Amino acid sequence: MNDSKIVVDCVLLADDPTTFVTREVFSVQVEIGGIPNDRHYGILRPADSRQNIYPRGTMIANRRQISIVSREECARIAGLMGLPVIKPEWLGANLMVSGLESLTELAAGTRLLFPDGTGLICEGENLPCVGPGKVIESMHDQPGLHRKFVAAAKKSRGIVCSVEREGRINKGDTVRVI
Amino acid sequence: MNDSKIVVDCVLLADDPTTFVTREVFSVQVEIGGIPNDRHYGILRPADSRQNIYPRGTMIANRRQISIVSREECARIAGLMGLPVIKPEWLGANLMVSGLESLTELAAGTRLLFPDGTGLICEGENLPCVGPGKVIESMHDQPGLHRKFVAAAKKSRGIVCSVEREGRINKGDTVRVI
Repeated sequence: MNDSKIVVDCVLLADDPTTFVTREVFSVQVEIGGIPNDRHYGILRPADSRQNIYPRGTMIANRRQISIVSREECARIAGLMGLPVIKPEWLGANLMVSGLESLTELAAGTRLLFPDGTGLICEGENLPCVGPGKVIESMHDQPGLHRKFVAAAKKSRGIVCSVEREGRINKGDTVRVI
Repeated sequence: MNDSKIVVDCVLLADDPTTFVTREVFSVQVEIGGIPNDRHYGILRPADSRQNIYPRGTMIANRRQISIVSREECARIAGLMGLPVIKPEWLGANLMVSGLESLTELAAGTRLLFPDGTGLICEGENLPCVGPGKVIESMHDQPGLHRKFVAAAKKSRGIVCSVEREGRINKGDTVRVI
């Protein structure tokens, strides 16, 4: 990694209860349970197939509060799918950053610090599932396109984070990765 | 690691506000913020010198809710300090387990599951500090004994955990490490 700045290019919110797709906003307040009014907000959340050590639906600590993708990795996914662009909205991302070559490879436990002192903890890779592929297909006139997503997004789909210190994240913020 | 059972030998609580030393109880309820009435309970806690990316005292997510030591590692520390025993109380531990050779080496992110479904997340090694050494010295007639603790406890002082799923932990419970 060179010393180019890591910057928040987009801030997004999943506040439409009918979809995981996010919409761009200028900034979000983050609390210890995530982003208020966002689909993934909560101190607790129901276990799903990824937490199969618990019965499905068991309320567990929410470590998947905030989803981050990178501009560079979205471009890589787009290239592999033969598309001009993959928008962070389609992946349900809350932040898109640029300036980091391999966001998805950040180790769990890595801290992301924002200018006002807001801190996120990387909880690891966001494993690709089929949902975003279907959204992407619905935006293009290519039947079957959704099947390409999971393979194309492997190791490029970004990370999930939980909040360590509350604060505000704004479009244009620089990010320190520690 | 062989397939010997991992068992909760002691359950302990730090409910005396004047000390970190714990006392043995039969069981504890654990909630998403830790063990109610315990010194380390809380969804948030103030950052200390270990979280020096934040100003001291900043309220941050509490990932140091529950402290666990192992009988085997306590025996190792005792041996290195020339003592017959190191009690989990003196280390401020909430649980002492047996049947695991190297508790302290468990990777962050490892899950500990208890019989009723209670789940803890290992947040990593509990780095030794000087406090327990002073308690140990106060229990023995050996001036200067406290200076031996940090070196003796390195890589043997156990782990800190946060709660993933609420429930009850009892003396005698078996533990699944996943």
